[in-house]
Amino acid sequence: MGKNIHFNIHQTDGKARTGFLSMPRGDIRTPAFMPVGTAATVKAMMPESVVATGADILLGNTYHLMLRPTAERVAALGGLHKFMNWDKPILTDSGGYQVMSLTGLRKLTEEGVKFKSHIDGSSHMLTPERSMEIQRLLGSDIVMCFDECTPFPATEDVARASMEMSMRWAERSKDAFGDRPDHALFGIQQGSVFKDQRAESAEKLQALGFDGYAIGGLAVGEGQELMFDVLDYAPGQLPDDRPRYLMGVGKPDDIVGAVQRGVDMFDCVLPSRSGRNGQALTRMGAINLRNARHADDPRPLDPECHCPCCQNYSRAYLHHVVRAKEIIASMLVTWHNLHYYQELMQGLRDAIAAKKLDEFVRDFHMKREIGDMEPI
Amino acid sequence: MGKNIHFNIHQTDGKARTGFLSMPRGDIRTPAFMPVGTAATVKAMMPESVVATGADILLGNTYHLMLRPTAERVAALGGLHKFMNWDKPILTDSGGYQVMSLTGLRKLTEEGVKFKSHIDGSSHMLTPERSMEIQRLLGSDIVMCFDECTPFPATEDVARASMEMSMRWAERSKDAFGDRPDHALFGIQQGSVFKDQRAESAEKLQALGFDGYAIGGLAVGEGQELMFDVLDYAPGQLPDDRPRYLMGVGKPDDIVGAVQRGVDMFDCVLPSRSGRNGQALTRMGAINLRNARHADDPRPLDPECHCPCCQNYSRAYLHHVVRAKEIIASMLVTWHNLHYYQELMQGLRDAIAAKKLDEFVRDFHMKREIGDMEPI
Repeated sequence: MGKNIHFNIHQTDGKARTGFLSMPRGDIRTPAFMPVGTAATVKAMMPESVVATGADILLGNTYHLMLRPTAERVAALGGLHKFMNWDKPILTDSGGYQVMSLTGLRKLTEEGVKFKSHIDGSSHMLTPERSMEIQRLLGSDIVMCFDECTPFPATEDVARASMEMSMRWAERSKDAFGDRPDHALFGIQQGSVFKDQRAESAEKLQALGFDGYAIGGLAVGEGQELMFDVLDYAPGQLPDDRPRYLMGVGKPDDIVGAVQRGVDMFDCVLPSRSGRNGQALTRMGAINLRNARHADDPRPLDPECHCPCCQNYSRAYLHHVVRAKEIIASMLVTWHNLHYYQELMQGLRDAIAAKKLDEFVRDFHMKREIGDMEPI
Repeated sequence: MGKNIHFNIHQTDGKARTGFLSMPRGDIRTPAFMPVGTAATVKAMMPESVVATGADILLGNTYHLMLRPTAERVAALGGLHKFMNWDKPILTDSGGYQVMSLTGLRKLTEEGVKFKSHIDGSSHMLTPERSMEIQRLLGSDIVMCFDECTPFPATEDVARASMEMSMRWAERSKDAFGDRPDHALFGIQQGSVFKDQRAESAEKLQALGFDGYAIGGLAVGEGQELMFDVLDYAPGQLPDDRPRYLMGVGKPDDIVGAVQRGVDMFDCVLPSRSGRNGQALTRMGAINLRNARHADDPRPLDPECHCPCCQNYSRAYLHHVVRAKEIIASMLVTWHNLHYYQELMQGLRDAIAAKKLDEFVRDFHMKREIGDMEPI
């Protein structure tokens, strides 16, 4: 581990764990949900509001930031924390996933990925070394190895070739990262849905040694059942004493199931993106605020929620501002959704600490069943 | 005056006055700037942030609210204050101006104005009586008479016919408003740029008796010079002991010049609309944040400004989020602009209280001249 970084598990319940990932910029309570701050902002939120939801860390996207405003510019301005007014820890992804999902023209070689910017068509190259450099320039607290997120579905051969290249890239990433006592480098397990490949990937990563381990290549269209099948074994292939991060997950019930299976960290655009689309996420289910049935409804989204949206605004108001395309609609519903996610994480942490996770999970599913809302 | 409403002038300096308009929902420090909350939101701002800028009152638009969500719905939900989470005073316009500026098909008669909604094309009618009813349903603290904003330029005959109809509508508005001790009704002076018509309009309004008097029909394309020509005499035609409100004004130097001429209240979309367009307004002039020259600039918009935007963000960051079309760009620049306007009003109030308005105005113009920024 980075010398000044510590992961302490305070309690376990079955495979689930709760504790702290302690870093120079602050403690991250685990299991943790990281809001996504793609382009140096959690969309529609002031940073102090993100803190108020209970977030201990947020995620920034290397791909977006390298193109605009550029990592060099962010570094010259004092780093991403100062730039975006966020002094708690930041995790940055490696950029690889967005290159594959957002750019059309690209060329993947052993060296790295050549691609054209989705903003202005300019040519760029990402390699393990360049990804480490960009994440260092940004000042990221938790740096992710540069890898290929194996597409789904993949044959065993395709998955193996992809995983093996990612493991070679992991070694190059670690070499390029160097020795940074205040910063963490996470390896990323690949291997698609093949248990032996996942085991081999985990072994290779552990031989290199990382501060934390991500489970990559999931939440890419395989569905919850297959994802949980992999999560039944993948976390156990990774070291017990290091944080495990399930990238890009997910819906509330994905997170609950993954925590039960031993995952410690999550990120997902769902709460913020849904917020901008007028979809509120609550413990009872989803509320599509565009629906006319909310026009006269004086109730808050969730009477038990303590977020500013639920304390001060009716569904009728939210319906009105969603329909009128007012910016405050995105602000309020995003705030509520992120608050709901953080309350869910606090509930999970408290339940694990009390060794009552099974009860919590039963209650979680029951509330969603008795609610008259749409499924999330 | 509404029995529970009081206007106290504490100090004058030349024609300028400073004091309080005291209402059951709160005191309004004058000269006052009212941010515009068209559709039950000051765009891109949380209401508590609007309060934090120093606003004592905001303006709501009858035309927008009657169409969506409708005045009846707002009333059923407990009124506009509760609906939009704003417990300080609200002034609503009469709806007439927006009908003329935003709708294509309309028919103006002695009875009122028939028009089609710009949202869904549905037919509506606004009359003095209906405007009073809508403003009562909304729960507006300061209700504006229904009038015709005389277009500019207008011949003397056209201006007179328009002014005389507005005066008949003012009488109908007053009759329909009735006796409401906690609520104010403001008359609106018309008469275009003709001094004798302005005088006649003022006399007719005073004969009816209103809680305050607006100067209407200005800021409609006549330019600052001609506007100031009218303001050299129009405020003096209205009672000294009632607040004077210049509707839809304006740029900072418009406001400064109007305060010198005896105006007490203002509203304008400029600070909020500019904020959404990436244009910051400062005491040194305007900053177009889209401009590439801000990309590496670590300075805040205004080093002397105490708003959260200037305290925590660089021009480089604002440039980035404006270019990336991030919602936080609208949030931060709107906040700054509204803060700047309220600081300007506080400066004017303090200067009048100290009988140093001339010095303040000299300093105001000097800062704009020595700044290397664009004119506002």
